[in-house]
Amino acid sequence: MERYTIGLIRVLTIQDEELLNRHGKIIEKTFPELKVISKCIENQPKGIYDEKTEEEAKPKILRLVKEFENEGVDAIIISCAADPAVEEARKLVSIPDIGAGSAVSALALAYGRKIGVLNLTEETPRVIKEVLDTSLVAEDHPNGVTNTLDLMTDWGREEAIRAAKRLKEKSAGVIVLGCTGMSTIMIAPILEKEVGIPVIDPVIATGVVTLHSLRKVEAWR
Amino acid sequence: MERYTIGLIRVLTIQDEELLNRHGKIIEKTFPELKVISKCIENQPKGIYDEKTEEEAKPKILRLVKEFENEGVDAIIISCAADPAVEEARKLVSIPDIGAGSAVSALALAYGRKIGVLNLTEETPRVIKEVLDTSLVAEDHPNGVTNTLDLMTDWGREEAIRAAKRLKEKSAGVIVLGCTGMSTIMIAPILEKEVGIPVIDPVIATGVVTLHSLRKVEAWR
Repeated sequence: MERYTIGLIRVLTIQDEELLNRHGKIIEKTFPELKVISKCIENQPKGIYDEKTEEEAKPKILRLVKEFENEGVDAIIISCAADPAVEEARKLVSIPDIGAGSAVSALALAYGRKIGVLNLTEETPRVIKEVLDTSLVAEDHPNGVTNTLDLMTDWGREEAIRAAKRLKEKSAGVIVLGCTGMSTIMIAPILEKEVGIPVIDPVIATGVVTLHSLRKVEAWR
Repeated sequence: MERYTIGLIRVLTIQDEELLNRHGKIIEKTFPELKVISKCIENQPKGIYDEKTEEEAKPKILRLVKEFENEGVDAIIISCAADPAVEEARKLVSIPDIGAGSAVSALALAYGRKIGVLNLTEETPRVIKEVLDTSLVAEDHPNGVTNTLDLMTDWGREEAIRAAKRLKEKSAGVIVLGCTGMSTIMIAPILEKEVGIPVIDPVIATGVVTLHSLRKVEAWR
């Protein structure tokens, strides 16, 4: 079976090699068909957290997109639920560009049409709102949690489970995780088990959409 | 690599074994990770073409869903763009139930947010309209085509290409094929090449969503 090479872009500056590669490892473990090379943007250790930092990040993301294309990867993943620079990347290069926000929300709609979004702290990313549209029935976040480290504590995990249960009570039949930080700490399967409805992980969603983008013409060859 | 067994339901009565298995073969060729067993509903050689025939088909589809579950398949595909009985199947069994209509329209949203639907003849299936919502920018169909056989002729293919080009002119950045009959005749790659935008095939879409539904907890094991 052919193994594709994917370029994955982290939209914050990460020195630690293991941390840099974590999203890539999650994708490779879920889809051994994909080999993932990760790069991160420069001089933004806090990543993207408002419009200003998103605008600051965009040219850096697009530089990495071009760099990956030159290196000959088969597809590019922008591993952030806000889909920063994804549309611009699609105009810049001819290989597929997959954003975590559009991928996770799109995929959720294949599982049901009443979707709840579990965010880390902030609001639901705009791209997720746009994709889910009127299928977005509820948004929530774990009380008191301000970052992914909080979520790794017992109380943080409990609050995440409570928030996910609230989404189900508000009629959600599927849950979208609205931040790739939630992928890093592997909370999707815990929530799915506790709440009993599908929980769609944004990093895994990018993996499957990427595989689709590369395989979709195989049958006709 | 583990190979999953999938039960695929054709919503029309097909005697010919090769024809019955065609959607399954397309999925297996695209995703060798999946082994597909096909079954069809009884006494409906013309399939589903209005509300009455959909209601007639539903209990037959659900019988096959239950049968597949008893046989121990890992997931079930209902291979029709109208998603007949998909929601009911989700309540009936605990394994994943994937419908071609929701899968293809959901997946399209991972590629862009201006979607055109290319139908065979009739209207856009309701489930596709619901999933695409305000991202549905155009609907069209090949002039003069009344069935998939027409599409296999030179003039039929030309009309399909023309209709797809009209969708792009109406600002579509991604095309959804609104009928699984279009999968049978393998028109997606032709249109993609001629029109230059992603064309999402409904049968292949069910394959990738099925793979996601089965793989999505692999990374955490």
